[in-house]
Amino acid sequence: MFLRLCPPVLGLPPHAALADYAARRAELGAAEVSKRFLALAGTSVMCVDTGYVPEPITSPAELGDLAGAAAHEIVRLERVAEDVAAAGTGAAAFAGAVRSALATRTASAVGVKSVEAYRTGLGLLDERPSDAEVTAAAGRWLASGAGQSDPPRLADETLQRFLVWCGVDLRLPVQFHVGYGDSDVDLDRCNPLLLTPLLRAIQPTGVPVMLLHNYPYHREAGYLAQVFPHVYVDAGLATHNLGRRAPALLAEALELAPFGKFLYSSDAFGLPELYYLGAALFRSALSEFLRAGLDEDLFTERAAVRVARMICADNAKRAYRLGSGM
Amino acid sequence: MFLRLCPPVLGLPPHAALADYAARRAELGAAEVSKRFLALAGTSVMCVDTGYVPEPITSPAELGDLAGAAAHEIVRLERVAEDVAAAGTGAAAFAGAVRSALATRTASAVGVKSVEAYRTGLGLLDERPSDAEVTAAAGRWLASGAGQSDPPRLADETLQRFLVWCGVDLRLPVQFHVGYGDSDVDLDRCNPLLLTPLLRAIQPTGVPVMLLHNYPYHREAGYLAQVFPHVYVDAGLATHNLGRRAPALLAEALELAPFGKFLYSSDAFGLPELYYLGAALFRSALSEFLRAGLDEDLFTERAAVRVARMICADNAKRAYRLGSGM
Amino acid sequence: MFLRLCPPVLGLPPHAALADYAARRAELGAAEVSKRFLALAGTSVMCVDTGYVPEPITSPAELGDLAGAAAHEIVRLERVAEDVAAAGTGAAAFAGAVRSALATRTASAVGVKSVEAYRTGLGLLDERPSDAEVTAAAGRWLASGAGQSDPPRLADETLQRFLVWCGVDLRLPVQFHVGYGDSDVDLDRCNPLLLTPLLRAIQPTGVPVMLLHNYPYHREAGYLAQVFPHVYVDAGLATHNLGRRAPALLAEALELAPFGKFLYSSDAFGLPELYYLGAALFRSALSEFLRAGLDEDLFTERAAVRVARMICADNAKRAYRLGSGM
Repeated sequence: MFLRLCPPVLGLPPHAALADYAARRAELGAAEVSKRFLALAGTSVMCVDTGYVPEPITSPAELGDLAGAAAHEIVRLERVAEDVAAAGTGAAAFAGAVRSALATRTASAVGVKSVEAYRTGLGLLDERPSDAEVTAAAGRWLASGAGQSDPPRLADETLQRFLVWCGVDLRLPVQFHVGYGDSDVDLDRCNPLLLTPLLRAIQPTGVPVMLLHNYPYHREAGYLAQVFPHVYVDAGLATHNLGRRAPALLAEALELAPFGKFLYSSDAFGLPELYYLGAALFRSALSEFLRAGLDEDLFTERAAVRVARMICADNAKRAYRLGSGM
Repeated sequence: MFLRLCPPVLGLPPHAALADYAARRAELGAAEVSKRFLALAGTSVMCVDTGYVPEPITSPAELGDLAGAAAHEIVRLERVAEDVAAAGTGAAAFAGAVRSALATRTASAVGVKSVEAYRTGLGLLDERPSDAEVTAAAGRWLASGAGQSDPPRLADETLQRFLVWCGVDLRLPVQFHVGYGDSDVDLDRCNPLLLTPLLRAIQPTGVPVMLLHNYPYHREAGYLAQVFPHVYVDAGLATHNLGRRAPALLAEALELAPFGKFLYSSDAFGLPELYYLGAALFRSALSEFLRAGLDEDLFTERAAVRVARMICADNAKRAYRLGSGM
Repeated sequence: MFLRLCPPVLGLPPHAALADYAARRAELGAAEVSKRFLALAGTSVMCVDTGYVPEPITSPAELGDLAGAAAHEIVRLERVAEDVAAAGTGAAAFAGAVRSALATRTASAVGVKSVEAYRTGLGLLDERPSDAEVTAAAGRWLASGAGQSDPPRLADETLQRFLVWCGVDLRLPVQFHVGYGDSDVDLDRCNPLLLTPLLRAIQPTGVPVMLLHNYPYHREAGYLAQVFPHVYVDAGLATHNLGRRAPALLAEALELAPFGKFLYSSDAFGLPELYYLGAALFRSALSEFLRAGLDEDLFTERAAVRVARMICADNAKRAYRLGSGM
């Protein structure tokens, strides 16, 4: 898929040799390559998780400029807690310092993200932990990292559950990485069904929960989006990783997920090609899905257009409250 | 799917506006609407679970009359136990009272049903509980509901396992709700594989076990139907909920499930439209499945007709012993 | 599928009656029937698990002769341990005796196989057990079988994990039966994701781990093949059991599994028809997969040929070090 779609963007024929592709890429320069792929992705609004690397290579604003898009920040919860710990905060002050840091860091953000899946798995308890529980857990965690030069890595069920509830209290949509990623993950602890008790506990607040990626649990995620009014799902990452199987994946994910609860996502990171491939593959998969529905007379053309708008833009605008101007 | 198939039944064009549909429905009246959809469902024999509401709106006999079909009752196990408890039975008399009530209630029934999936999940132990264990469990359960006006809700592994074995002792097919339903369910406790030890324990009795619905665990259910001679499966509920994906679902379910172990089911309830949609979507999915097999020369036309008869009628007649006259 | 493909091999028309088929089979004799089906399977190299029956009906060499193929042995780990126990070895000498017997038995073998899935499930711990742990476990196991005439059946997590590490120490590819088999298996304990900690522990050794069969966990297996460089997968058994759904299964398995990590497997055993059906169905499924990719211009014809070679031969040659002459 990569070799069919990407070389033409750089002025090469499809299926060009990888060496020629690399040479052409170097010749054009990173900025021009990024600009071409991001422009072709055709994204008008981006939500960017800034927590993955110690210092992001490209800020949301820069990324937005390259893509000609409005860019919004998603704040990674564990990162904020790790920054608070790295600043030397003690256990007693931890809960308050995290709340305060999160309030500051999310002042202009549109959501928060939990990478619990990569740390202790999605088997979170449902109840909001008490401050005493948070203090005790923070004490254990901070003590375990004492004397080490690296910033401590958070992998504690109580503290990560606390972070999720902090996000809920800020009334910001809470994203969860769900399903596969890399070999760090124990995939059987990344089944979104493990979140059921927590989803049930968050439901009364009305705060949206965004289940990201989900493969190979996309049917289970679709079920959660059907039965819980505040749960939204996407199929990012898998779309470009599966390539030609993207239409099959989309069809499975939409078996139960309502059209109003499914979002486009690229999960692109690093390579600008991924932004383009994610968008191109998703558009083509959605288009195939809708065209088949029209062929079978399942909905009208008007309805198909509305569904495309919802999935590609309107659902995200509503859940993240991105404003009508975007 | 609803908007394509249902309006014409009421004399409206496909994709009629919902408001027009509701107006036409009111104009025709509930009885006429029910009759039209049930007649089109083309069901000749129905098995009706009567345990969902305190007082069923439509009895099996009335439903059968509307549909022009023979109607048989499936008795919900938990309901019988809850009725016994509501009648003031004490713990010591509980096991005997349940056995006696079940014998009475199932006198003309063709099967029993467990909704364990909605209560404590499908992780049932295999062994038949002793009367002492049932008495102890009943004591705990009845005490927990003491002083409350509502009838107690049964959610106890020992008691529900006891109920299943009561059904087995009556030599009636035992249905299990499996897989998704609504947000009450913890879907990860509804995987039919959790029933494996119990299925193994029931196998020597030869009593059929009917796994209902099964989505998204329909492949797992198909596996159980393949390896256990007394296990049968269907794909009810999902057929009409998935709509256009019903053929894909059926193809997956039939990967391992033998043709002689798969049953049609509508899981329709309440709206008469659901009886019609369930039947229409299933017929169209099965027809697509069989036509593809004929196109690929996988079986003869004679074999395809036999498979259709088995799945749409004969398997149910055999498992539920419905008699040759139906 | 059977009835379409197999009768013509014996000179009968497709969809011949089973009685005619059986008569024709008897008339030709077992040797001729085996020869015809094995020749048509077109296998050039076979890896044969010799551990299933007390005395194999057909040795790898005989099977290779019938098929006109080079045949290599896969040694079943549990079988070797059971033979050591049956020879009267005590607990103290057990670890050493197993290591020695395995070295002898695998002298000309190309891999070992664990049927842990059928015994205690795939939830193996990761660490190599100490000799003291092995001795203690062996003592318990040998004592449990004392005084019985049948050879003891191994179902012990510590001992089976020990066997896997023995295979790793011999630097032989370690096969695991994964996913469905028969009703002995608790399928929910056969999810390959349960092997994740062990796979992570084996990774530094570079010894290949071969996940066999995998249905219905073939997507999970594909994920493991993607993220772990030493993990390989196949879809044996399911290919001929699923028949017409083999192309769908293959497409799902290859969503994440890299082309260089997927192997052909028949999982044929006993009936020579299964060798032929496994091969014919797999070839047709792979051919459909590759043709669709060519139609969509996803890769060049040259790339399609390379992928076919990898999956049908080269991946196996590399992982099992079968030598370039074969």
